Amino acid sequence: MHLEDLKTPNLLLNEAVLRRNCERMSQRMKQADLTLRPHMKTAKSSDVARLATAGHSGAITVSTLDEARYFSQAGIHDILYAVGMIPARAEEVSALQAKGTRVLMVTDSIDAVTGLAEQARRLGAHFPLLIEIDSGGKRAGLLPDGPELLDLARAIHAAPELELKGVMTHAGHSYQVQGIARLRAVAEQERAAIVHAAERLRDSGLPCDIVSAGSTPTAVAAERLDGLTEMRPGVYVFNDLDQLGIGSCQWEDLALSVLCSVIGHNHHTGTLLVDAGGLALSKDVSAQHFLKDVGYGWVSDLEGELLEGLYVKSVHQEHGLLCQAAGNLDFTRFPIGTKLRIWPNHACMTAAAYPGYAVHQADGAVTGQWPRTNGW
Amino acid sequence: MHLEDLKTPNLLLNEAVLRRNCERMSQRMKQADLTLRPHMKTAKSSDVARLATAGHSGAITVSTLDEARYFSQAGIHDILYAVGMIPARAEEVSALQAKGTRVLMVTDSIDAVTGLAEQARRLGAHFPLLIEIDSGGKRAGLLPDGPELLDLARAIHAAPELELKGVMTHAGHSYQVQGIARLRAVAEQERAAIVHAAERLRDSGLPCDIVSAGSTPTAVAAERLDGLTEMRPGVYVFNDLDQLGIGSCQWEDLALSVLCSVIGHNHHTGTLLVDAGGLALSKDVSAQHFLKDVGYGWVSDLEGELLEGLYVKSVHQEHGLLCQAAGNLDFTRFPIGTKLRIWPNHACMTAAAYPGYAVHQADGAVTGQWPRTNGW
Repeated sequence: MHLEDLKTPNLLLNEAVLRRNCERMSQRMKQADLTLRPHMKTAKSSDVARLATAGHSGAITVSTLDEARYFSQAGIHDILYAVGMIPARAEEVSALQAKGTRVLMVTDSIDAVTGLAEQARRLGAHFPLLIEIDSGGKRAGLLPDGPELLDLARAIHAAPELELKGVMTHAGHSYQVQGIARLRAVAEQERAAIVHAAERLRDSGLPCDIVSAGSTPTAVAAERLDGLTEMRPGVYVFNDLDQLGIGSCQWEDLALSVLCSVIGHNHHTGTLLVDAGGLALSKDVSAQHFLKDVGYGWVSDLEGELLEGLYVKSVHQEHGLLCQAAGNLDFTRFPIGTKLRIWPNHACMTAAAYPGYAVHQADGAVTGQWPRTNGW
Repeated sequence: MHLEDLKTPNLLLNEAVLRRNCERMSQRMKQADLTLRPHMKTAKSSDVARLATAGHSGAITVSTLDEARYFSQAGIHDILYAVGMIPARAEEVSALQAKGTRVLMVTDSIDAVTGLAEQARRLGAHFPLLIEIDSGGKRAGLLPDGPELLDLARAIHAAPELELKGVMTHAGHSYQVQGIARLRAVAEQERAAIVHAAERLRDSGLPCDIVSAGSTPTAVAAERLDGLTEMRPGVYVFNDLDQLGIGSCQWEDLALSVLCSVIGHNHHTGTLLVDAGGLALSKDVSAQHFLKDVGYGWVSDLEGELLEGLYVKSVHQEHGLLCQAAGNLDFTRFPIGTKLRIWPNHACMTAAAYPGYAVHQADGAVTGQWPRTNGW
């Protein structure tokens, strides 16, 4: 089967590019003597996890407990659940532990810690925890130099049902800057913050085995990685236009695209209609921050050759409206039924609409269908 | 079971509000002597279709052939597939027809019509078609007064394998205006355009049994509906903040919300973190057009009481960041684990991330789990 034969919309994964992306990050982490704990929230696929963890410890990161169950089932037994843990979900983690899967949890809240200790007692469980640090992303986490950090660390350490394993951070603000110099600065900010937090714990006689950082941009750009024990990049396995705009990858590193069909020619508005809209692409507009004329994605032919200036200007639920950035659209190049590929803004969001990946080779041969998990 | 007992994030559907929304639209269409052909792209649920079609012919509209198969399987046998049909998918329609389901298709392209006639010959099928008209939405469709309309109508009418059933339009631009007066103007523009197109066909001796229009805002606001035979509103079954901002519904008409849990207190940024992010809510920002301080949704308590000023300011994949529009956020009101409800911008996009609905009553009792279909 060839790409041409697939129904549309469809989610395409270029296996060679995926393998190269995985290999490159693996090498980089090995050279820095760090554990690569890839964030599987992007791919949510055990086939991708196999490639991403090759040559490393097999540890991964997840964003939902659904992913934790899925990957545990797939034989992965060292999982960091990287979203603030709440006591109400302790039973789900305990059930995974009973199957031999270590689930590292993250917290930045003394109330959550109190509740988790209670749950652990009730369940006869033992919960390993990382303290989340805000290294500038302003999402979750304690400040690395505030008094709350040591209070929280001591509370975890004092609870016999809990184990303080270390600290973690995610420099989400690396997505807001462009160019290797600025990315390096954010990476160093991330590293410095989490290493400082780790040092404060150790200086207070508290354990801190794990010092975990990382986003794709910071993992790619960082000059210094000393003091870290692991990194958790995620989207690097696929990359996307957002990463391209930021400067953390090149065009040839994009592994994920959406196959669509031309379903209409709107001559009076100069618009080409395709059957990939807001659901097939997601409504993520992140790449618009740094790229011009990108809308909801750039467009290539079936071979992956970029059709310069053609982009998804707007989306409705099942319609994508393609415009030509400069000049007029030549409708005769795109007869009804023509198959095109759209390169999405944000791979994590786009992939979530699909039950899996149509895996293809450089020549367009479709060689597999890899399932993924979705939901919570 | 009560809302409080559900895992988060979860998709909640208030059955009483849903029933009232369905009944109101049904009555309105009956009074106008029109067929209600609800667009099931929003709900994608046979349970909802049952309520939405009650008292009418049982006809529905769909946005994907996956929906067509799902609803055919559920016993619905009059389906309008409202996205421009391409010849490559003719076999899928033919398979549904063989099961006794009428699938009305839409087209605005002479090339598509030529291809569909060829496919119909090849498959021994007979395809009923509506011509799509652009009534101002500038998405798909021919202009109602252009020469292409009659050329296309004649081409369909001349093909023995095809049947010209009429014309259809969707005034998507009704989503861009606010207030009943402006909505009425768009509704009349939609009606006038499609009725004009129908008259042109009939004046040329061509058949035009079906004159199909409708979006939720125009179906709600239209003063005149004469000349139409059916309407295809969709999101009215649930409504959302976008419809509220437009003015096509009231706050008490919102049936769909997302249950989430408080997972963190970020004191240094004044942000409350919940476990409903970009995937659980979608990244649709439509409601921002007319509502202030709405972000990715407003927030209520478990009872549905709006927490004035609290809204989802930003989203990451699994994190929602809640801010207080005016004044300071009182964290003590929202301990870790507190369950809240988020009222989404765009119900169609939000619902698509879930396998179904947790159906609840006014008192918060959860009385069912209704599945939905997703994908293509």
